[in-house]
Amino acid sequence: MSATFSELWSAIAPIGRVANGYIRYSFEEPELVLRDWFRNQAARRDMAVTDDGNGNLFAWWGDQWGQDAVLTGSHFDSVPHGGGYDGPLGIVSGFLAVDELRRRGHVPRRPIAVVAFVEEEGGRFGVPCLGSRLLSGAIEPEQAAALKDREGITYGEALGGTPAGRLPGLTSRIGALVELHIEQGRVLDVPVGVASAIWPHGRWRFDFTGHGDHAGTTRMDDRRDPMLTFAYTVLAANKEARLSGAHATMARVEVEPNATNAIPSLVRGWLDARAAETSTLDNLVEAVVKRAHDRAGRDGVEVAVTSESFSAEVTFEKSLAERIADLLGGVPVLPTGAGHDAGVLSTHVPTAMLFVRNPTGVSHSPAEHADEADCVAGIAALARVLVDLT
Amino acid sequence: MSATFSELWSAIAPIGRVANGYIRYSFEEPELVLRDWFRNQAARRDMAVTDDGNGNLFAWWGDQWGQDAVLTGSHFDSVPHGGGYDGPLGIVSGFLAVDELRRRGHVPRRPIAVVAFVEEEGGRFGVPCLGSRLLSGAIEPEQAAALKDREGITYGEALGGTPAGRLPGLTSRIGALVELHIEQGRVLDVPVGVASAIWPHGRWRFDFTGHGDHAGTTRMDDRRDPMLTFAYTVLAANKEARLSGAHATMARVEVEPNATNAIPSLVRGWLDARAAETSTLDNLVEAVVKRAHDRAGRDGVEVAVTSESFSAEVTFEKSLAERIADLLGGVPVLPTGAGHDAGVLSTHVPTAMLFVRNPTGVSHSPAEHADEADCVAGIAALARVLVDLT
Repeated sequence: MSATFSELWSAIAPIGRVANGYIRYSFEEPELVLRDWFRNQAARRDMAVTDDGNGNLFAWWGDQWGQDAVLTGSHFDSVPHGGGYDGPLGIVSGFLAVDELRRRGHVPRRPIAVVAFVEEEGGRFGVPCLGSRLLSGAIEPEQAAALKDREGITYGEALGGTPAGRLPGLTSRIGALVELHIEQGRVLDVPVGVASAIWPHGRWRFDFTGHGDHAGTTRMDDRRDPMLTFAYTVLAANKEARLSGAHATMARVEVEPNATNAIPSLVRGWLDARAAETSTLDNLVEAVVKRAHDRAGRDGVEVAVTSESFSAEVTFEKSLAERIADLLGGVPVLPTGAGHDAGVLSTHVPTAMLFVRNPTGVSHSPAEHADEADCVAGIAALARVLVDLT
Repeated sequence: MSATFSELWSAIAPIGRVANGYIRYSFEEPELVLRDWFRNQAARRDMAVTDDGNGNLFAWWGDQWGQDAVLTGSHFDSVPHGGGYDGPLGIVSGFLAVDELRRRGHVPRRPIAVVAFVEEEGGRFGVPCLGSRLLSGAIEPEQAAALKDREGITYGEALGGTPAGRLPGLTSRIGALVELHIEQGRVLDVPVGVASAIWPHGRWRFDFTGHGDHAGTTRMDDRRDPMLTFAYTVLAANKEARLSGAHATMARVEVEPNATNAIPSLVRGWLDARAAETSTLDNLVEAVVKRAHDRAGRDGVEVAVTSESFSAEVTFEKSLAERIADLLGGVPVLPTGAGHDAGVLSTHVPTAMLFVRNPTGVSHSPAEHADEADCVAGIAALARVLVDLT
């Protein structure tokens, strides 16, 4: 079989599309349909599919979990109301690169697998790159199993059991991972680039606890309103990030009871913070936490901060990135502020990333877009890299 | 029959109680159970129950909708995670006051009705005092029918049809309304008081529209983050209220997509504002709207403000309030910042309110409480007022 990019892309484009972007949560209906699509695509190419017991899927060309396999792929899941390219483009490109290698009569010396990592966005269970963290032992299976979604369903329940955890023999079985992904900024001005590094980043949950009361009758001086502390912290995080050249965002909030006429008893806000240097990130988060506590004291509010996830700075193997950039005719090598499964695995096995141009730079939004010609160029580049590696 | 306060109170106390306070939304299960309880209590007292076609219930002692009826009662519905006294205390006290009048052998010259108004909090459909607004013609039936809850169910669907609207002959049929309610501040330091006025108050919805994008990769200078504008407006509302001696609260927020790693495309916040004087309230809201717009310009965000409800200043009929205060031995006469159905009806018929002491002043919160002795004193006071009026 030999499908074109537009054929494959138009088949998955409607899956999980809602009025405003995509909702593709791990193990919920649209993502399950995409998993079926993955199995069907593998079957059409005579690629056996294995599951690592963590929720990640692998479609094999060559020995399943033989030595030194070259993996390529990405993830299906989206942020709520996200774009369609972030993740699936890497999986579709993986299958199409396999087609291209076969068309050329390439006989790989090492197994090749197209991989679909689970819960990369953390959109359902809160911890991003959950599948690659489990595969590489960066999170304990029991801890992952206990993670809950917004309805209280655990990851273990969604998966159907406790995850298997770290792959035995990980470093000898996986020889390399090359993840293709849409760029998520406006740095890349040619169709394809290569990743140099991922900024260190993390998520911190701020629980602001005040005192629920009547919004109409409670005197301003008697209030202990946690919404005020939250609002101050939102602005403080923005200001501190600007001052330090980092990125900080408070984009998610939960309020109890969230009623127009009731001062909240609890406001919960999440800080997403990233910086080029770990020390910058540390100082940024410390400054935001300090300012939240200072304001909390004035508001009569308690604040508790929990680190929900942290991803250390990733520097992709320099020799591999440079070799790929040369192979592709000297394409740009650029860092990114976005986390990826390739980043999680980079501390264990050689990993590289190809970026496909994003003309607006918009991502995690329905407006995310890549031109078809650039996607096709991405597949050609990925095929060239796979030929070189296998 | 002759029940005690504690008997009746303990029967309804578990209904709609959750781990953290009460959730009693109009026409949802707990409130439907309370409506059944209302019909059963009426039946035990040989009081016929009528429905005005708007969702309000009336239990009659004497002619249904005869001339010059004296109404007493309140509402069953709660704010999310609210207290148990706010509303139901007035209905329970109404039935027990009827018992007391009968025990004394009182023969009323005018019909008496215990009333349960629907959707007083606006907790489900957004417009507070919806039942009394419909009964008095302050909102159009079609407009009320189209109001939606958070799941998109309309008030018309919940009610089972378009509301009947204004009661024909309202001003001749209703001679007076006396609503008993727990106080919602800490002003009252004796068991029972009488209301003088309700502050003018309203709800305004602020839609802050920005540009959804990736929280990790989008440069701080490229962002159009509506959470910043919301946060600034929360703090501005608090500050403006303090400066003007008014009350302002932003306690409810909805975020799209509300994901940790996605700059929101939309943040919707609600302003609850109240003041002793209408001019103060107008100036307060104008100042908050102006500051929101100023900040929105800096954030690259659009802001649209919608007035969702407005309740003009209410001054309860002074002669009635003074007569009742005298009758009860010179109890305090005090204003409140909280809206009530009695306030909505006060522009059409003579209305009065009895307040029962709230030792902590806390309301719209699970911590809301009234002492049993004060509740019993409230029933005795209400009985004395009903004897006087009928």
